[in-house]
Amino acid sequence: MKIKFVLFLVVAFFMAIGSVNAQDSLMIRKIYDEALVNGKCYSNLHDLCKNIGPRLSGSANAQKAVEWGKKLMDSYGFDRVFLQEVMVPHWVRGQKEQCIIINGKNRIPLAVTALGMAVATPAKGITADVIEVHSLKELDTLGEAGIKGKIVFFNRPFDPRFVETGRAYGTAGDQRFAGPAAAAKYGAVGALVRSLTEILDNYPHTGATLYKKDGVNIPAAAISTIAADQLSAMLKKGKPAVKIYFKQSCQTLPDVLSYNVIGELKGTGNPNKYITVGGHLDSWDLAEGANDDGTGVMQSLEVLRILKAMNYHPKNSIRAVFFMNEENGDKGGRKYAELAAKNKEEHLAAIETDEGGFTPRGFGFSGLSAASLQNVKLSWKPLLEPYGADRLIAGGGGTDIEPLKSAVPSIVIIGYLPDSQRYFDLHHSAKDVFENVNKRELELGSAAITALVYLIDQHGFQ
Amino acid sequence: MKIKFVLFLVVAFFMAIGSVNAQDSLMIRKIYDEALVNGKCYSNLHDLCKNIGPRLSGSANAQKAVEWGKKLMDSYGFDRVFLQEVMVPHWVRGQKEQCIIINGKNRIPLAVTALGMAVATPAKGITADVIEVHSLKELDTLGEAGIKGKIVFFNRPFDPRFVETGRAYGTAGDQRFAGPAAAAKYGAVGALVRSLTEILDNYPHTGATLYKKDGVNIPAAAISTIAADQLSAMLKKGKPAVKIYFKQSCQTLPDVLSYNVIGELKGTGNPNKYITVGGHLDSWDLAEGANDDGTGVMQSLEVLRILKAMNYHPKNSIRAVFFMNEENGDKGGRKYAELAAKNKEEHLAAIETDEGGFTPRGFGFSGLSAASLQNVKLSWKPLLEPYGADRLIAGGGGTDIEPLKSAVPSIVIIGYLPDSQRYFDLHHSAKDVFENVNKRELELGSAAITALVYLIDQHGFQ
Repeated sequence: MKIKFVLFLVVAFFMAIGSVNAQDSLMIRKIYDEALVNGKCYSNLHDLCKNIGPRLSGSANAQKAVEWGKKLMDSYGFDRVFLQEVMVPHWVRGQKEQCIIINGKNRIPLAVTALGMAVATPAKGITADVIEVHSLKELDTLGEAGIKGKIVFFNRPFDPRFVETGRAYGTAGDQRFAGPAAAAKYGAVGALVRSLTEILDNYPHTGATLYKKDGVNIPAAAISTIAADQLSAMLKKGKPAVKIYFKQSCQTLPDVLSYNVIGELKGTGNPNKYITVGGHLDSWDLAEGANDDGTGVMQSLEVLRILKAMNYHPKNSIRAVFFMNEENGDKGGRKYAELAAKNKEEHLAAIETDEGGFTPRGFGFSGLSAASLQNVKLSWKPLLEPYGADRLIAGGGGTDIEPLKSAVPSIVIIGYLPDSQRYFDLHHSAKDVFENVNKRELELGSAAITALVYLIDQHGFQ
Repeated sequence: MKIKFVLFLVVAFFMAIGSVNAQDSLMIRKIYDEALVNGKCYSNLHDLCKNIGPRLSGSANAQKAVEWGKKLMDSYGFDRVFLQEVMVPHWVRGQKEQCIIINGKNRIPLAVTALGMAVATPAKGITADVIEVHSLKELDTLGEAGIKGKIVFFNRPFDPRFVETGRAYGTAGDQRFAGPAAAAKYGAVGALVRSLTEILDNYPHTGATLYKKDGVNIPAAAISTIAADQLSAMLKKGKPAVKIYFKQSCQTLPDVLSYNVIGELKGTGNPNKYITVGGHLDSWDLAEGANDDGTGVMQSLEVLRILKAMNYHPKNSIRAVFFMNEENGDKGGRKYAELAAKNKEEHLAAIETDEGGFTPRGFGFSGLSAASLQNVKLSWKPLLEPYGADRLIAGGGGTDIEPLKSAVPSIVIIGYLPDSQRYFDLHHSAKDVFENVNKRELELGSAAITALVYLIDQHGFQ
């Protein structure tokens, strides 16, 4: 590296450090004080979880959540509160699923839950031999000869070596997303998937599976990690032969009209330029959707509440968006992007908070040049460091804001990064309840996101 | 700033970055893999919490824990496992405490727990008027006229604006440590302290109070935050007059012989030069002492287990120490330092893990020059950054290793810094149980501490 260039870097560094101006530092401290002393997101989350509860797209509860959310936003007196119409899928679970190991004379029930969007078994259920696999590739090796007429059991566990659990989810996730469709191709009659979590307990974790439009749809369900270990051990033993009885009655009903809920603080300088912060209002049906993603919607709302409480008049328009249907269709996210393009809105940035309400660590940025990201690090890291929210990395976003990338190519897409260790213990399971959210962790997250929104509003990306 | 100096800084920086050698990086990755794939600290913690449980100094359970700890260390085949004798206080709680608001005809029981080392009330309890204060200074203003014959109720809450909860504990803590003795000076007949936690619930949190040797000892207890708010509201209302009935039967028995438990990997280069990593084996009596400090002792043990499993031969001797009596006397920590001085041991560093088994954030260093700390940051931060354990700051340590400062003046004293948000929700209360420890968070902590021990062993402090 040439000395001149090194010198340039240093000067740039100290210029950047110099730009940590007292005003920004003071504003961020005020944001944290408002969030930690007068925070409302924990009590709002309590209302959402306990008075409404599970709110799967298309359900009566999802509609209740929309109405409640709009009323709550109205009560805060934002410059504008509105709904965006969006048609969403309406999948229903039906009766409680059953999954039983048939092992000689033994009948061993397994903790099971239908995967989202899955089809039902015949009314009497199915009974079949089981073949255990650890990858989708293995299906190709087994072929029809090894698979036809059987239930395929996907049992690759989370890799514990990843520090961020999201990466373990990412690498094990294909079994749930794509496994059942891939197994169907070879004539499987059903699919069971090890729950996508590292924790060893008896809670099954649901989540969407994707069928191929032109393929055969087979019934698919998740079993708990304890059930998966038990089934695997019995299959290894081999004698007496293991069969599975499996029954579920879920179905997909006609699409339903639903809504994104949007609150807005109007920009004083660039009213048609937006900074969006959002989470998703819909949840899976097994619990209250507390961390997925009640925390995200309540934090997004809190960003606007905090800025308004501080009497902050943003340069750009700032929106909190409660997206609908992230879990099984992403229709809300797509609609938001579609309307942004149609209405010729300029979008500076969109931030999604959908990784739980845990202690903030930082943010991941997509759509920023390396130089701009470096600038963000140099300028903003020192401001966020006292709050421990200074992990500013390349890459990140969220399902709901992803469609904005093509709708508004100049946009910077940002994922909020809380501590990831506990998220998949709860994710999509009956454990995702209010009691598993910590008040301070949630509030610190609201504050960190508000601080970032403030910095983007003040300085943009250079 | 002169350009030459800037240039010097840059060169130093890149030299330091250059020293992130592949060997260190690889070793740290191996340490994490061992901790996350083959980790034993979670199952060891389960044994300690569920088979032994609460282990207050001087109790039969504390002795069981010593024996169990030594046996466990023996089973790992370290180079040396030994006990250090230490006399410890033996305080016992006695019968369940009672605290009742007398308000006209109403009798409202409050959730209460005697403070550690406190004295009993008379057998029939005490009934007295209550005076609420928010600081020790307020006692001086009130004087004997305002305090004599009354129960002093210390009710200053945690300040939520601190990002690190330890700082809120530090600033509210004087009420518990010193409040009762200060109130006694003005003739108070008892003291009630708002539990040292931010969470609003009905669990009282115990913890040691310090009486003055030449002072009068008055009975002192903690009430839950909900109870404190309730009592405060009734005192504000004022009518009918509020009195408190309060009864406890705790006492301090004669000192008991107990032990620090120590395991050692012998140094291949400097066998008489030590790196100590420790937590405390004793706990309060209200729960299992899972996060305070079962996690710390199990992580300390895990450091040695990981290094041995990796067949790592340290340059310096590395010790895991289960200190006895941190909670109410610090006799174990003092004994360890006394023997270090007596035996002319050289000590390079001591690390304490006593802030819970939460996700690692970094380490705090005391006894390092500013230049050495800067060097630590430049050299080690990039190595710990991929694991999120790279907050390396000035200041830190732990009660057990503090006495080493004067015994071995050259020592570097280090506090392990996990995420602090949930610690005081549980701390010293009946909620400090195994179920409130997350396996991965605990394991990541073991790995982070082992990585730091490895780096200190390899490079020392420059």
